[in-house]
Amino acid sequence: MWKPDRNAKIPIYRQIVEHLERRIAFGELPPGSQLPSERRMAEQLDINRSTVIQAYEELRASGLLESTVGRGTSVSRTKWGLTPSQTPNWHHYTEGGAFLPNLPLMRRIREVTRQDDQLIDLASGELSDDLFPNRLIQDLLKEQPFEEHLGYELPQGHAGLRGTLSLFLERQHGIRTTGSSILVTSGSQQSLYLITQCLLSPGDAVAIEDPSYSYSLPMFQSAGLRICRLPVHKDGIEPGDIIQLYREHRIRMIFLNPNYQNPTGSVLSMAKRKRLLEIAAEYRIPVVEDDPFSLTTMQPEPPQPLKSLDQDGIVMYIGSLSKIAASGLRIGWLVAPQSVVARLADARQQMDFGLSIVSEWLAERLMSSERFDDHIMNLQLSLQLKRDQMAESLHKHLPGEVLFDLPQGGLNLWCKINHKINDSRLLEDGIRSGVVFVPGSVYGSEEGYIRLSYARPLLKEIDPGIMALAQALRMQNAR
Amino acid sequence: MWKPDRNAKIPIYRQIVEHLERRIAFGELPPGSQLPSERRMAEQLDINRSTVIQAYEELRASGLLESTVGRGTSVSRTKWGLTPSQTPNWHHYTEGGAFLPNLPLMRRIREVTRQDDQLIDLASGELSDDLFPNRLIQDLLKEQPFEEHLGYELPQGHAGLRGTLSLFLERQHGIRTTGSSILVTSGSQQSLYLITQCLLSPGDAVAIEDPSYSYSLPMFQSAGLRICRLPVHKDGIEPGDIIQLYREHRIRMIFLNPNYQNPTGSVLSMAKRKRLLEIAAEYRIPVVEDDPFSLTTMQPEPPQPLKSLDQDGIVMYIGSLSKIAASGLRIGWLVAPQSVVARLADARQQMDFGLSIVSEWLAERLMSSERFDDHIMNLQLSLQLKRDQMAESLHKHLPGEVLFDLPQGGLNLWCKINHKINDSRLLEDGIRSGVVFVPGSVYGSEEGYIRLSYARPLLKEIDPGIMALAQALRMQNAR
Ligand SMILES: Cc1ncc(COP(=O)(O)O)c(C=O)c1O
Ligand SMILES: Cc1ncc(COP(=O)(O)O)c(C=O)c1O
Repeated sequence: MWKPDRNAKIPIYRQIVEHLERRIAFGELPPGSQLPSERRMAEQLDINRSTVIQAYEELRASGLLESTVGRGTSVSRTKWGLTPSQTPNWHHYTEGGAFLPNLPLMRRIREVTRQDDQLIDLASGELSDDLFPNRLIQDLLKEQPFEEHLGYELPQGHAGLRGTLSLFLERQHGIRTTGSSILVTSGSQQSLYLITQCLLSPGDAVAIEDPSYSYSLPMFQSAGLRICRLPVHKDGIEPGDIIQLYREHRIRMIFLNPNYQNPTGSVLSMAKRKRLLEIAAEYRIPVVEDDPFSLTTMQPEPPQPLKSLDQDGIVMYIGSLSKIAASGLRIGWLVAPQSVVARLADARQQMDFGLSIVSEWLAERLMSSERFDDHIMNLQLSLQLKRDQMAESLHKHLPGEVLFDLPQGGLNLWCKINHKINDSRLLEDGIRSGVVFVPGSVYGSEEGYIRLSYARPLLKEIDPGIMALAQALRMQNAR
Repeated sequence: MWKPDRNAKIPIYRQIVEHLERRIAFGELPPGSQLPSERRMAEQLDINRSTVIQAYEELRASGLLESTVGRGTSVSRTKWGLTPSQTPNWHHYTEGGAFLPNLPLMRRIREVTRQDDQLIDLASGELSDDLFPNRLIQDLLKEQPFEEHLGYELPQGHAGLRGTLSLFLERQHGIRTTGSSILVTSGSQQSLYLITQCLLSPGDAVAIEDPSYSYSLPMFQSAGLRICRLPVHKDGIEPGDIIQLYREHRIRMIFLNPNYQNPTGSVLSMAKRKRLLEIAAEYRIPVVEDDPFSLTTMQPEPPQPLKSLDQDGIVMYIGSLSKIAASGLRIGWLVAPQSVVARLADARQQMDFGLSIVSEWLAERLMSSERFDDHIMNLQLSLQLKRDQMAESLHKHLPGEVLFDLPQGGLNLWCKINHKINDSRLLEDGIRSGVVFVPGSVYGSEEGYIRLSYARPLLKEIDPGIMALAQALRMQNAR
């Protein structure tokens, strides 16, 4: 986002005037566009409200802006000799379409973390900068010249990367497959998107965990799916619940995150895994296993994915580099029967024509590098340190007030708050105290839970982050 | 695709047996999966039919495959003790969903070009390998260490790249904008996808050119849009036609490729550009300007995009690196009012979470490199040489039989065949003669046209390619 330059010779209010003039002239803010209120604009730009008032006044004087009581400030419609009818009613367009906007709480969290880098971020489900393999990537980019074909790629993904992935899947997860059953995607997000858009139809019922990361995705609603819930216990969902849902709603697909589930951290027990596969096979309901976390394990062995036990070709497996290397690489994979992969590859060609060959090439080199295993081992150790630090800080600053099970992998602590809270108010109090986290309602859970990421903050930020959380909780109690 | 290894010690039929066994065991070909006929499989693997027969026989003997008269060969359902009811009916899933498959003629073309690299490719709308900036990219990857943040990016795209793009758009196209009104996409394809999915609703009417590249995209139908056609003349569409379409169908958006239109190569005249913008403003219909080609110009100046003349913020402009640098980079951009960009960025977060930071970083370096202008100049000269070669070969080998206007930019010649042809039969005769091109019906045109790409073949392949086309036409005539 644009910000005024405090060191420039030009006064800040003039910088704002010129910035807005430019945007209006370029048609970026067409006639009728609403501007933020003076207070909000001042917050966004981190300046005094009086400076914004001065800028808006100058723009009103020149006829570029107009303000009406109750409607606030907007770009003048009479400038350029335009009648209001001559610019499209963009509002109609941006409100249309089949796509639901992201959840307001999530948008709020993204907005504040973007604007204020002083906030301690216990909200984002990703690694801190020091855990990314920057050094390794730099070396890989330098070591071997890029010699790939730069034309349109197969929409299914780079053949070399798919080969490397099939070795990786067998070695790390005991999943046996070949390159032709793998689709390379822009992270798990795109795998989920392709499945919900291309294999299901509006009105279909699907089962997801409750609480669940999937619930934070308007994707399921955008695709017009009916959502049935599978409550998550300490050892994962109850497979028998599926039979009930099938009888009542004819569910057509089951979405699970059985390994260090997001947000609860729970792991589906082996007995339940077997029972689940039996039931899915008996009722012929495909299972989508979303598995971004199993390699973040702190146990001697990561949990065995459902896919590695799948005799019936009933499981579609989704993996990603996001939580084990870098989310900004946007590299994920989907393992499914060949006809499914072919269908999804064909559909994705209409969406984006496949991934950039440069990032596929880099991912291939990264995952086949000897140094990748070391990276994973270091990652696991660092995450464990951070998890332990967070648990300790919670015991210290919020003894008895916050309850959680210690997860054996994943990136988060799922915490029950021991007294009544209001989700969005607690979030705002958190922001005021200098910390941000995800209220449980985002994952469809009842109020009274929050998700704390120990992966995203630096180790040294964790204790201050929990202190800020304690302060926010005290503000809640005082209300 | 997997192929047997002719130099291996193991007989080819055994290699096939083992390959299929592996795929069946891994669940990639679940029970009931249909296998290609023996003849087709032999073609695909480029081996004798008898070898396939031998392999299938062995697999039938071991119970893995079963063949039934009329239904061909499929993976046995009784293996593994499975009853047919225990594997999902994947067929139901892959036939479902809102996504239409790609057009059969396009699939056929992709299939043969992928399988047979002896074919001369006059079909693909992309550059030949020698025109990609491989050397420059290699140098960029080595020169400066990669130091970008590897976490989740803004879904709107890397800020540095958007800054570079706004300079590029002003310098190359006279389009004045700022980074906040630019969305970075996975090529023009994704820009079109986001617009059709997020700004329009099923049942909306839109206008596209006839013939048009857009017509080759099932995307419009997948989004449930009603398509109205604007016939393309030598100097582009007739703006007055829009009024008619608006009265009859209330069209909500106009999709145009006004600069070296794909497939016709036509350029919308300046007088028509102005009239079009007036009409669009008067009826408040947004215009999508799809402009992948203007920098492939052979004229002293590229045509001036509609967006550079747009006073009313009524044009959404789409550009891409695909046709001017490398399609495999999957970098495109969309310029639109800020509220539209924000909406599309929010929606794309649900689809793919944005692009890989590595390719955005590379694109930023490429487009801000001093050597990029040289690359573009060389490209323009090479394309002109190839276009002239193709025109000459057509005159020589098919005098009077094939009519075309010489395009001043773009990648293709749009040819009228002077006698009756059958589109798909001509394509098959072409393949038999060693050449592939796109029949006009793919673009929604009446039969009797073909699109020949002079960009994709090497210069030296153009004359043999046209000779093969001449042979295919003789085969047609002989029928
Ligand atoms: C369970 C789960 N699935 C999928 C994703 C999406 O990850 P990506 O698209 O970056 O691979 C996340 C991210 O938090 C997740 O927690
Ligand atoms: C007119 C037009 N628009 C869009 C595209 C898609 O190009 P890309 O997604 O590679 O930018 C093409 C490709 O041929 C095209 O011809």
